[in-house]
Parts: sequence; structure tokens; C-alpha cells
Amino acid sequence: MLAYRELGKEELKTELAKLKKEYQDICSAKISLDMSRGKPGSDQLDLSMEMLDVINSHSDLSASNGFDCRNYGVMDGLPEAKKMMADIMETTPDHVIVYGNASLSIMYDSIARSFTHGVMGNTPWCKLDRVKWLCPVPGYDRHFAITEHFGIEMINVPLKEDGPDMDFVEKLVREDEAVKGIWCVPKYANPTGISYSDVVIKRMAALKPAAKDFRIYWDNAYAVHHLYDEEQDEILDIIQECEKAGNPDMVFEFASTSKITFPGSGVAALAASKANLEYIKKQMSIQTIGHDKINQLRHVKYFKNIDGVKAHMKKHAEKMRPKFEAVHNMLEKELRSAEIASWTNPKGGYFISLDVMPGCAKKTVAMCKEAGMILTEAGATYPYGKDPEDKNIRIAPSYATPDELIDASRILIICVKITTIEKMLTEM
Amino acid sequence: MLAYRELGKEELKTELAKLKKEYQDICSAKISLDMSRGKPGSDQLDLSMEMLDVINSHSDLSASNGFDCRNYGVMDGLPEAKKMMADIMETTPDHVIVYGNASLSIMYDSIARSFTHGVMGNTPWCKLDRVKWLCPVPGYDRHFAITEHFGIEMINVPLKEDGPDMDFVEKLVREDEAVKGIWCVPKYANPTGISYSDVVIKRMAALKPAAKDFRIYWDNAYAVHHLYDEEQDEILDIIQECEKAGNPDMVFEFASTSKITFPGSGVAALAASKANLEYIKKQMSIQTIGHDKINQLRHVKYFKNIDGVKAHMKKHAEKMRPKFEAVHNMLEKELRSAEIASWTNPKGGYFISLDVMPGCAKKTVAMCKEAGMILTEAGATYPYGKDPEDKNIRIAPSYATPDELIDASRILIICVKITTIEKMLTEM
Repeated sequence: MLAYRELGKEELKTELAKLKKEYQDICSAKISLDMSRGKPGSDQLDLSMEMLDVINSHSDLSASNGFDCRNYGVMDGLPEAKKMMADIMETTPDHVIVYGNASLSIMYDSIARSFTHGVMGNTPWCKLDRVKWLCPVPGYDRHFAITEHFGIEMINVPLKEDGPDMDFVEKLVREDEAVKGIWCVPKYANPTGISYSDVVIKRMAALKPAAKDFRIYWDNAYAVHHLYDEEQDEILDIIQECEKAGNPDMVFEFASTSKITFPGSGVAALAASKANLEYIKKQMSIQTIGHDKINQLRHVKYFKNIDGVKAHMKKHAEKMRPKFEAVHNMLEKELRSAEIASWTNPKGGYFISLDVMPGCAKKTVAMCKEAGMILTEAGATYPYGKDPEDKNIRIAPSYATPDELIDASRILIICVKITTIEKMLTEM
Repeated sequence: MLAYRELGKEELKTELAKLKKEYQDICSAKISLDMSRGKPGSDQLDLSMEMLDVINSHSDLSASNGFDCRNYGVMDGLPEAKKMMADIMETTPDHVIVYGNASLSIMYDSIARSFTHGVMGNTPWCKLDRVKWLCPVPGYDRHFAITEHFGIEMINVPLKEDGPDMDFVEKLVREDEAVKGIWCVPKYANPTGISYSDVVIKRMAALKPAAKDFRIYWDNAYAVHHLYDEEQDEILDIIQECEKAGNPDMVFEFASTSKITFPGSGVAALAASKANLEYIKKQMSIQTIGHDKINQLRHVKYFKNIDGVKAHMKKHAEKMRPKFEAVHNMLEKELRSAEIASWTNPKGGYFISLDVMPGCAKKTVAMCKEAGMILTEAGATYPYGKDPEDKNIRIAPSYATPDELIDASRILIICVKITTIEKMLTEM
């Protein structure tokens, strides 16, 4: 089949008519598919069921430091939970605070604290006229929602194959004291799946911000979420790199077991310099007496150590690979030759990022929705929900089965083709 | 034995010498006791161990609404968890949001949200010059710590036998728009153990605040924490009373299972009007995808219903009664006749409140500490840690055994007597 741009007006119209017929048939079939969020499939959740057996009424619920996990206390996490989360983030336990069940809440909390009390003695952001934030795009909608919620002005930063455009980042951070942070998903980024190169990470760690309270928000959400055994992205330890660059306090790193065990019932953690942790713990001591230590212990008893986590993640990969491949194969087979879109083929993480012709994303997603298939809202991968080119679509293959994903991809591809041809025809 | 005030200087000196000898002997014995915090004893924690069996790898983790509790979602709590928490608070599930493991965090979060985003559309407190708060005293140090952390000006309100001095509360709330809230522990108050009378609760619900965003922070921490079967305090449902009084939005109620199952690994909830909940959920949707639903399910499966909770609390009462009685009997036997102190004899909750002669609390607590016995810091039951009369001491009997509590009470009584006589002698 020819690329669409090689087709004449009539040929496009014929193709469009054929596609619309197919679309009508799909709509009549009244399917219902959800590819909107990075939710693990139930087959993935099944993998962790035995974790629910490691603690029962006969268990000794003492932590390694002898503390009775059933009672109040141990505000910043069990030693063994710190170790586990440190290993996942490839840092050391002395940099870690273990929190409750979600890293999203830690990020919210970190920004809320900066807003109300400031960062390590600096002016609370609520007392400033303007606070700005760098947002590599496309990125994670829930990140952008937090900064938007606090009235922080978000600035789009191009996300390239090896990470954010560092020329752009360096300049903005150096010149504008109002720039207080940057959202980063450094490994298997949401949604493009790229990982930051060593060069990018070293430049990130060596930033010279005008704002003393500038922090890199390093959401290492997919640290161990590889799809393949043989090809795995690895990234530098940002905390160590910041130390080496003389910026030890410049980063907050986040991770959780949400997509390792059970989302919502996992363990989440923050990693940062000791100076940051001391400051944060002062606030924490007002906010909580301690998080769920029994759940921390449950995770540690189940995994034993980082090797246990990695072995577990291989099982996840076995479930995830066919899902990613189902989508990828369909895109290759049905969409490649038309030369009207591009997509990522990530080695890990939870998403495939699809770029369609500018101006076609919203319409495509709307058409899919009408056909019974929910995708992440178009624009969601950009601050304020505004994709300036209206071209990025995030595909989340985890929740469906490979068979469902083949159907879903077919619908998506038809919708992409229809909206693209319609656009081409109006421009002819 | 005579009341101390009936003794002459020489008699007091003789008594003091005898007491100091006893104190020296105790110090030499190098004991170690902790009565500082309201931590359940390990015998109480043992009561909930079987809750750890109700969910295992073979369990169906579907909620009553069919939702898979293992996955993301259900931000505001499982229907059955709402019902359980509503029953504990004696309200209805439609007034309830279920959170994570601690009500303290919900209270912090509520004030933080009011600070950054305001209460139901009102000016965020961070934009106001002054925010004031009413603090019935003596009260709970962690409440005061939150308001202090946000720079809120705390005003002491006398706490009487039937609740806060409502003449005082009504006047301040009516006249001063800067007054945005009041801390209340309405049942078995921390530390005095009193419960609010119907009259007080009705007056509370009928407040006419100058501030539209005034909220009663109703910490129903000891809702089901009775010590006796026969004599139990019951309080009116504040949410219903506020509705009746035409103030449906004026209250946030908090509760948790921290002292029912496992502190730190329990389930906590907020209850409020639907208008409040809608506003709060908007913020929550930025902050979290959902709390630990597996733990919610674990609690519901274990208790089944409110009768299960109540039956469980009877077992707690059986453990707690001998502890409270050990302290109370010692105070009656060894301290009553001296007529130098008064104390509460609560029917529930976690504390005994001891009032010594003004100016003697700090010294007493310090002496106890030197003898190896940790009490809550004197002053802690007042805002800013400042007991204006330096007379209140909070005793937390739960964590020790009855035998330990007899020893601990003996030490405490000796220290009270020594500091009192020393004070009397300087004033003679």
C-alpha cells in the first residue's frame, strides 16, 4: 500500500469511504475497551497474590530493629523497607523515607509543603508572586495536574530521545528564579518510553539554578519495569550525580511498588539528601505518627531482597510483552505504510506514545470513544491538557488482553486514518 | 493521713525527707517505663491478629460493588468500608470518605488544603493576615502541633466537665472572622476523658460564626473506646445536629481504627456534608488515585459489621480496665488524702488527666524522667506546650502492664508529693 501523501483526492475519498464503513461496523458491534490508564491487568495482579500469605496471625511482626510493626511509630519507614526501596531506586537506605501507598501523594505532599512552608528554609511559595515549573512534553498528566492545582505556571520543554532538551532547561533554570522545579520520568518515560542518557542526567545534576529551592522531581516510576531480559535501559543514580556535581540537595526522587505488587496497596518512597530528609521529617512529624509498617513488612518478607523484586518483574514482563507486541504489530502492519503517524517501541514502562498528524489527535480519540474504546484524553500528556499540535495519543496496553488489544488497535488505526484523510482532503 | 495543708513546716520537712529517700531508692533501681503516649499494649495488639488471616492468596478481593480492590481506583473508599466507618462515627455512608491509615493525616491534610486552596471557595488561609483557632484545654498535643505548624494563632478555651465553655466559644466565633476552627475530642476527650453533653453539642452545632469557612474539627477518636459495659458515654451525631441547626457544612468529623486494630495499619475516615465532600474530592483527585482498599477490605471482612467492632472493643476494654484501675487505685490510696491533686476517672478513651498544684507539673515530670519513667511532656496538653498554670499531667496507662502501672504510679505519686511539698515550703 502507498503512503497517503502519494494518493490523489479520489483515491483518498475511496479509502475514506471504505474506512467509514469499517468504522460503522465497529460502532454497531458495541464493544467496550479501556486503554486510558496505566492500570495493571488482572493477570498481573494475580502475580502478587502470594504476598498476601506471608503475614498471618502466627507471624512475628517485629522489624529488623526489633520494633513491633503493629504499633505506632517508625515514622520514616522500617530499615528493611528503606533498603528495598533504595535498591529499587539504586540509591542507599540513608537517602530514603518510606511513605504510604502512593508516590503521587508524596509528590503532592512535597509541593504542598514547599507551598506552605518552603524548601529547606526558603520562602514558602504561597508568598511568592509567581512559581514556574518545567514540564518535559509529552509527559504524565497527573504530574501536570499537581502543579496546575497549586497555580504553578508550567512551561513545556521538548522531550527528546535521550531526555529533556537540556540547552532549554539549563537556560531557563539559570535565568529565572521563579523556576522551582522540573518533572522528570527518567526511565521508560510516561508516555514516550524513552530513558535519559548519561549525558542528560549529568547535565541535569550539574544545573546551576537561579532559585536556591529549585528541585528536580525525579519520578522513577518504572525503575524495574523492563519488558525484555536482554535489552534493558539503565540510568545513572541522580542522587549520586547531584552529589558529585556539588548539588546534593537538588533532587527529590520518587518510587513505589504500585506496578510491582498492588496499586493503591503498595509501598512508596522518597529519596533525597540527608539535609532534605531532615527538613521533611520535621514536617512529617506533624502530619503522621507512621505509615503502614505491616504492609512494608509484608512486601519485604515477600520479596526478601532486590533479586526477589527483579525475578517478580520478569513475570510482569512476560504478561506485558504480548500486550505491547499486539499493539506494536498492528501499528506496523496496518499503519506503517500509510506514513501518517509515528509511535514508540519502548523497552519498558507502561505506554506507547502515538503521534498522529497535527490537528488529528482530539478527533481520533473522540471517534474511538464513540466506538466504545476509551483512550487517555487527547492533550492529557501536556500541561493544561493542551497539546499545541494536537497530535499526541497515549496508549496504555496493560489493562487489556492481547486479543482485546488487537481489536482496540484496529479501531484506533481506522480512526487515525479517517481523521487524517479528512484533514488531508480539507487541505487539498 | 492528713491533708498536706494541715501539716506544719517541720512535719512537711520530715515527710519530704522520707519521700526523697524513697525517690533515691527508685532511681537506684534503674527502672524503665513509658507512659508518655496513648499506644496500645501488645496484649491489645494481639486481639487483632486474626484480622491478618481474613485475606490470603485464595481470597476474592472484589468489593461489594464488584471492584477489584487490588487495582487502582475507588478514590473515596469501598462502599462497605464507608459503611463501617460511618457506623463507628454514628453517621451515614454518604457523609464519609475513607482515607489511608491515620486520621491525624486527614486533619493535617484538611488544614493544609484550607491553607492552600481555601474552604469551599473561600479565601485560602495563606492569603489572610491572621487565622485563629479555638483549643479547648487541656487537649491533644498533636492537634495543637498541626495548627502551630501552619502559624495559626491558638486560643485556649476552658474545657469543662460537659465540654468546652460554650459562652466563650460562641462569643469568639461570632465576633472574630479570623477564627476558622475549633479542635474537639467530643467523646472520652484526650486527656480528661470527659464527653460533651447534648446541650454543648447542640450549642456547638448552632454556632453562628463570623467566618463562612469556620469548621468544627470533630476528632471522634474514641467513639467506641468504652472501658465498661454498663456505663458508657454516648454523644449526639454532630453532623445531624449541624444539619438541624441549619449549619450542614460546619463540621469535619474524623475517626480511625488505629486503636481498634493496628495503629499505623488501620483505616481512617472523614465525615462531612456532601458539599464539603464534593469540594474535598476535587483536591483528592489530584493527590491520590486511591487509598489501600485491600486493607479496607481486610477490616470489613474481619469485623463484618458494627456489632463485630463493638464485640472487639469489649476485648480491648477487658485489657484496658485493669490498667486504668491500677493507676486509679494507686492515686486514690496514696494521693487522695494529701489533698494536693485531682484526677479524672474516665469511662473510656486512653488517658487519665492529673492536675497537681500550680507550678508543679514540669518538675514532677522531670523527676519522673530522672527516675526512668517517661510521661507526656508537661505543658503538652496546651497550645505551644505552655500550660499557663503548669499543673496538668497526662497519664497514658495503655502501653504498660497493670503491675508496671502500680510501680509507675508509685513513682509518679512520690514525685508529685516531693514537688508539692517543696513548693509549699518555699511559700511558708
